[in-house]
Amino acid sequence: MAKNFTSRKENYSEWYNELVVKANLAESSAVRGCMVIKPYGYAIWEKMRDALDKMFKETGHQNAYFPLFIPKSFFSKEASHVEGFAKECAVVTHYRLKNDAEGKIVVDETAKLDEELIVRPTSETIIWDTYRGWIQSYRDLPILVNQWANVVRWEMRTRMFLRTTEFLWQEGHTAHETEQEAMAEARQMLGVYQTFAEEFMALPVLVGTKSPNERFAGALETFCIEALMQDGKALQAGTSHFLGQNFAKAFDVKFLSKNNTQEYVWATSWGVTTRLIGALIMTHSDDHGLVLPPKLAPIQVVFVPIYKEQEQLDAISEKVNAITKSLIAKGISVKYDDRDSQKPGWKFNEYEFKGVPIRIAIGQRDMEQGTAEVARRDTLEKQIVKLEELEHYIPNLLDEIQTNLFEKAQKFREDNTFKVDTWDEFQKKIEEGGFILAHWDGTPETEEAIKTATKATIRTIPLDFIEEKGSCVFSGKPSKGRVVFAKAY
Amino acid sequence: MAKNFTSRKENYSEWYNELVVKANLAESSAVRGCMVIKPYGYAIWEKMRDALDKMFKETGHQNAYFPLFIPKSFFSKEASHVEGFAKECAVVTHYRLKNDAEGKIVVDETAKLDEELIVRPTSETIIWDTYRGWIQSYRDLPILVNQWANVVRWEMRTRMFLRTTEFLWQEGHTAHETEQEAMAEARQMLGVYQTFAEEFMALPVLVGTKSPNERFAGALETFCIEALMQDGKALQAGTSHFLGQNFAKAFDVKFLSKNNTQEYVWATSWGVTTRLIGALIMTHSDDHGLVLPPKLAPIQVVFVPIYKEQEQLDAISEKVNAITKSLIAKGISVKYDDRDSQKPGWKFNEYEFKGVPIRIAIGQRDMEQGTAEVARRDTLEKQIVKLEELEHYIPNLLDEIQTNLFEKAQKFREDNTFKVDTWDEFQKKIEEGGFILAHWDGTPETEEAIKTATKATIRTIPLDFIEEKGSCVFSGKPSKGRVVFAKAY
Repeated sequence: MAKNFTSRKENYSEWYNELVVKANLAESSAVRGCMVIKPYGYAIWEKMRDALDKMFKETGHQNAYFPLFIPKSFFSKEASHVEGFAKECAVVTHYRLKNDAEGKIVVDETAKLDEELIVRPTSETIIWDTYRGWIQSYRDLPILVNQWANVVRWEMRTRMFLRTTEFLWQEGHTAHETEQEAMAEARQMLGVYQTFAEEFMALPVLVGTKSPNERFAGALETFCIEALMQDGKALQAGTSHFLGQNFAKAFDVKFLSKNNTQEYVWATSWGVTTRLIGALIMTHSDDHGLVLPPKLAPIQVVFVPIYKEQEQLDAISEKVNAITKSLIAKGISVKYDDRDSQKPGWKFNEYEFKGVPIRIAIGQRDMEQGTAEVARRDTLEKQIVKLEELEHYIPNLLDEIQTNLFEKAQKFREDNTFKVDTWDEFQKKIEEGGFILAHWDGTPETEEAIKTATKATIRTIPLDFIEEKGSCVFSGKPSKGRVVFAKAY
Repeated sequence: MAKNFTSRKENYSEWYNELVVKANLAESSAVRGCMVIKPYGYAIWEKMRDALDKMFKETGHQNAYFPLFIPKSFFSKEASHVEGFAKECAVVTHYRLKNDAEGKIVVDETAKLDEELIVRPTSETIIWDTYRGWIQSYRDLPILVNQWANVVRWEMRTRMFLRTTEFLWQEGHTAHETEQEAMAEARQMLGVYQTFAEEFMALPVLVGTKSPNERFAGALETFCIEALMQDGKALQAGTSHFLGQNFAKAFDVKFLSKNNTQEYVWATSWGVTTRLIGALIMTHSDDHGLVLPPKLAPIQVVFVPIYKEQEQLDAISEKVNAITKSLIAKGISVKYDDRDSQKPGWKFNEYEFKGVPIRIAIGQRDMEQGTAEVARRDTLEKQIVKLEELEHYIPNLLDEIQTNLFEKAQKFREDNTFKVDTWDEFQKKIEEGGFILAHWDGTPETEEAIKTATKATIRTIPLDFIEEKGSCVFSGKPSKGRVVFAKAY
């Protein structure tokens, strides 16, 4: 399996693409820019979804479902939103096919829609058009709704998980009485994303706001979690937007306030996507294949028996089944690969490549000595463990692997975060990769000029921004503090 | 809430439409034929999805995700499939909008797709095009994959949940070595659907095959579960298709068999949709509003305190919180509505209308006597129960309600199933509603003629079909047994 597998050093981009396909996570489809998410990849998404969904519900949100299609005219209603979204999108113009004279399937030109429908690139417009009917008074607020859905953005350059024409995501859309409450919601969901990234994905993230240039189209403030990949490029892993009253005004959503006045409703929206799977891969995996944090691994533990005779296998199976039972009772997902069609060595490679956190081999000598060989995927270390200790050893080891992956990623980020004070150094460091902390004069013009010169963007203005007088690394004008630059996915 | 609510007798169709909207299950959207599934309706779908997903996984299936879009040419590959599906569908022809000279948003005619994309009405074609790459030898089989997704069929006459342009569903697509194995899979999933309908939805269903006229486009055999609604109309609640080698041949999916020969792969597909929510409503609900079977009710038990002083409320809350804790530990979903803004009577109506299975009121006298008033939604009966008995009483009562709803629906079906032997009686009975068991000569022509004359279709040829010589109710020609006719949703 891992043979002929490109290493990160050879070609990081190729390494990623190969890993996605060879580990059976996803593959490209017959439709340009759209991927097929294969069962192993989808199982990771299910684990992500379940964990996030639980956190959303614990913070008072409910799920709902809004239409896939959005009337074209809706996009014109929020001026900045249309600039950001409505341009590169899938447009439905007809609703029927027919057989032509030669029996070929063609579009029936008589079945043309009066108004074209856009396949949702994001749902603010259709949702705020709906909320108008849900909100009359302050008693109807807040509305705390989330949607799990597919969306389509007609991307020119696509990459599996990271940027695809169609992708899966969740989009929260909330409506509030006051600015403070909406802002608190946007901040709360940023916190949920940070917790999820750190605790489930073992992914350290910077939290902060976006500069105006990088803001969501229609937002007054965009909060984000930003991660650093092993090649030194940044990846935006989730965003939470404070939308002010922009969409309420665009869709005329007012409410009767406690003071008996008509007010526009305050809004947030927030989302993460299947891109998180790309982030997961790029953060932890290595030249041996996938490395999955235990909390998101579809298979957490795999047992591989080593035997010659059926009798030996039977004895091993009996032991494994007993241990498996107690592990499953603890909520651990276990696979027992007793297939006769593949050799143990092949299986070792397979599960290593698939990123299964713990692999346990049990052979004849192990049985005699009452032991097993436990291999952990993160460090590739092996340990001999007594069989009767496994049911305690394994849950602890899963925790240890989860922690170790986070710490390793955090150390990588620290080692690749640099303070830079001159334009020469900035250009050099940006090429080498990593998060670059540099002074910026605060203007969109400078940000744009830096982007043009280096392809680097401001990834975030950290929430723990420290006031520190300095000169902009590009313009030399006064700056209030350092922001985070990087090249990004 | 229930005021001005149409009764079933007055206008069954209106009763249904009002119930869907007033109980906050769904509403129509700005997009023709597409609905918004509101949080309360979506919570029912989540319960359905979770129960089904568990059953799919227990029978060895995994989830995956395939593209929303299907190239137009794919539909031409399976001849009968295109006739059934590709005609009324949403067609994507362009991938960009632009501002015209007046600043209006228009379709950019330069961004026209070379080949139009169809928004999936069902995914056999894109999935079998993908399976070609997954299957080389018998070792790659079976493939047991399911997808939870949205699909679009351009329906001319829509009704919320029952028939909408976009709907949510699951579609299983499996690939097998042999005809027998594929047939066993199709039958197995029919069994899963039957179990789900009976045990979770409290919905008695007939199981059987469809006549050739009603078969899925591309199937050799379509199995179905068929239910009877309170107005005497039938509703197809789920289908499982044996597809033979049709799609394997259309998409050239062959495998190396154990005998070292190249063979076409055998296929099944099976699905249920958000239409099940419509079936749920139409089966159990009444003139007081929704009636939900406990296993699918988002809220299973609601507590309503009745009090005058804050002190009284505090004492009631203390009791309720203790009971709630023990109920939640048993997996029961409980709501405590201690809002001050609404009166108890309003709350009673609200939860009755929303179909919450058990409503418990506790007032001052109850507290003195250590009792509560327990109202069950299915029979509207009330019972005084000791507070200390509630934690045992409630789980039992939920089971009892679940069973009672099933039995009530089963009795309704029995009372509305008729053997009919003459054409006159057939026409009369079909008008009155119910399942009509009648002899049929087995020809599509007769089936079509009966449909034209009465709008009735053969709902199913039951799996427990009894050989019984007779004469076709329409043509008088010989018949081998009775099939089930009805008018259907």
